Amino acid sequence: MKVVSSFKWCGAFEKMSVTFAKGFLSSGAKCGIKKSGKLDLTLIYSIVPAVAAGAFTSNVVKAAPVKVCLKKIKSGRAQAVIVNSGNANCGTGEQGVRDANEMARVTARALGLSESLVLVGSTGLIGKKLQINNIKNGVPLVVKGLGKSWRTAARGIMTTDTRIKSAKATLNVGGKLVKIGGMCKGAGMICPNMATMLCFITTDANIGAKALRSALKQAVSSSFNCITVDGDMSTNDSVIVLANGKANNKEIKERTSEHELFVESLKKVCLSLAKQIVADGEGATKFVEVEVVGAASEKDAREVGKTVANSNLVKTAIYGEDPNCGRILGAAGRAHAKVKEGMTIWLNGVEIVRKGVGMLNYDKAKKALKAKEIKIKINLHVGKSRAVVWTCDLTHDYVTENSAYWT
Amino acid sequence: MKVVSSFKWCGAFEKMSVTFAKGFLSSGAKCGIKKSGKLDLTLIYSIVPAVAAGAFTSNVVKAAPVKVCLKKIKSGRAQAVIVNSGNANCGTGEQGVRDANEMARVTARALGLSESLVLVGSTGLIGKKLQINNIKNGVPLVVKGLGKSWRTAARGIMTTDTRIKSAKATLNVGGKLVKIGGMCKGAGMICPNMATMLCFITTDANIGAKALRSALKQAVSSSFNCITVDGDMSTNDSVIVLANGKANNKEIKERTSEHELFVESLKKVCLSLAKQIVADGEGATKFVEVEVVGAASEKDAREVGKTVANSNLVKTAIYGEDPNCGRILGAAGRAHAKVKEGMTIWLNGVEIVRKGVGMLNYDKAKKALKAKEIKIKINLHVGKSRAVVWTCDLTHDYVTENSAYWT
Repeated sequence: MKVVSSFKWCGAFEKMSVTFAKGFLSSGAKCGIKKSGKLDLTLIYSIVPAVAAGAFTSNVVKAAPVKVCLKKIKSGRAQAVIVNSGNANCGTGEQGVRDANEMARVTARALGLSESLVLVGSTGLIGKKLQINNIKNGVPLVVKGLGKSWRTAARGIMTTDTRIKSAKATLNVGGKLVKIGGMCKGAGMICPNMATMLCFITTDANIGAKALRSALKQAVSSSFNCITVDGDMSTNDSVIVLANGKANNKEIKERTSEHELFVESLKKVCLSLAKQIVADGEGATKFVEVEVVGAASEKDAREVGKTVANSNLVKTAIYGEDPNCGRILGAAGRAHAKVKEGMTIWLNGVEIVRKGVGMLNYDKAKKALKAKEIKIKINLHVGKSRAVVWTCDLTHDYVTENSAYWT
Repeated sequence: MKVVSSFKWCGAFEKMSVTFAKGFLSSGAKCGIKKSGKLDLTLIYSIVPAVAAGAFTSNVVKAAPVKVCLKKIKSGRAQAVIVNSGNANCGTGEQGVRDANEMARVTARALGLSESLVLVGSTGLIGKKLQINNIKNGVPLVVKGLGKSWRTAARGIMTTDTRIKSAKATLNVGGKLVKIGGMCKGAGMICPNMATMLCFITTDANIGAKALRSALKQAVSSSFNCITVDGDMSTNDSVIVLANGKANNKEIKERTSEHELFVESLKKVCLSLAKQIVADGEGATKFVEVEVVGAASEKDAREVGKTVANSNLVKTAIYGEDPNCGRILGAAGRAHAKVKEGMTIWLNGVEIVRKGVGMLNYDKAKKALKAKEIKIKINLHVGKSRAVVWTCDLTHDYVTENSAYWT
């Protein structure tokens, strides 16, 4: 079989995210929901109707925009996404659903689209009625602003984020250049299985709805579902991908090498965005990777990784640069997985526990913990499976930020 | 059937704990394990061999003293418990088990007992070899000190605790006065299913090993297994109860009203101790009760309660006295239980969410959160079962304490 495709990783923090792929425009505006007066409304627009797929929170408490998207996305088609920050439109009952639909309706009207082609997103405070009039007044501004200005769009979805998060990739599909670009917001409340995390990805790939859906599912599973900041899972988590076919490639179909390549590229974009979220975890000073090897299954490996990554005692020890092997041992030992006492643990390559016996290389490990990026590696010695989970440390600033968020 | 028994609750913080029941002595000493020079060795002794039962951590990583106790307690008999603080003797391999056995052996010799009758406990740093020589030197001191001095005994088991925790109860069994007294340590790393928590209970009841075991199981299930500070579970958790029969009551047998009464009394002692642990949670400023009603099953109710109680976002909101209904909704919504969106939530009696619609009575709820004791009540509206879980808030001091614990 001839190799028809090649993948190029463009990395994060580069120019253009949702407007990187052909035929996409975006903009951000201030509509007055945020008391701070910052950007709080974002529009993403494809110049032609696009194939759409989404992944949403598995929390049974779902925000109104999630409910609306879950219905609309079934058609596999969309052309625009309107998103506000500052209010999550969650815990708002039937009024919330009416408001989310109204948000889509007003945007559709301003863009001259069918209402069914406009998806919605919200992030921010839960339990407060959406300020729909602010949004109605803001829609003309974001429509008017549509262009390649992806930065204001990226800022319009931010809440406690301290920085813009974007990533992109290109691939060659049968001689055609296909682009994928994405942006996301999220800093606290991030947990495996999605989080207060909104992610929007656009691509000019020509791909069917089913093939796009399966690609997104695989990409989310190995990226957003592997990160955690504080173990909480949000009511608003959404990953939406639009593919408008403007690259004019031959349609990417499932079970082809082109699809594999597309999945690989989408994964890289998602993984970069996921890691940027963790690195921007509320109050975080360190980026932490937990790698679990020698597990009985991948599920077990991930379960152990998540339990260690979510342990407040492990996270505060890393903040304090303390090679406290007991806390890692203790956390791994209570995971709902096949675990034996005789595990081996490394901190940034320094062996601190060998087959269950701890406190090795204390001074060396203490030095290693001064790094900004910490890698905890655990060999369970019970099988051959492996998984990686990403998180950050738990700091004074996390507590400050979350005990004074509302006011 | 004639009522043959009555129960009197003596409450917590009263005089005498493990020496409250007849025929028990205790003492504490300094053996030099703690760098601070504080008390770090405790001996509890019954003047006659006692019936013994224990409940231990379900973490697969178990400390050496837990392994030793699990073996010894099978006999259902013990006469003394020797406990050190400052070192958990965990992650110490086979040497750790040898040290734990040596600790029992030295104590048995000094007391003239069979080694099989001496149980052991350790709490403190994990992964560090036990300072067995300090303990050997300390044993003569605690043996010499044996008396009614329960306070030094209570201090000898403390680590990050800021106060002594004790409770007692009396009951009348067929005209005989039966006493139960207990003490415990624990402040951080406390999670349902036990925690870095050591608890020792003594009673002069005449009761068989099987009846004592079933009583303890019931008491632990509705007390220590319902508290959480940070979701972590320790490698050293132990609850040990000794019953020496010195009350001379007719033997308490299972499935009798006397046994029920004994269980009830033991539960009250355990519950008081459990609540004292939560109130002394590391850095805690507030005591939090989460009551879940209207659940499909008691298991579900407890699962929802634990998920809310373990949520860092809920715990920081309470610290910040912020009636953030969304965080409670979000946490309950991700619990592994039958949960629907339309739940109702109260904060100290103030309704903040009604059938899924939030932000009610904001100012009133904000005022209510100024209290030191916070009660979150959640009606799931899906069934008739109920459970209560206790926890504390997550504060700056928690982070300080746990990021600088080792050094």
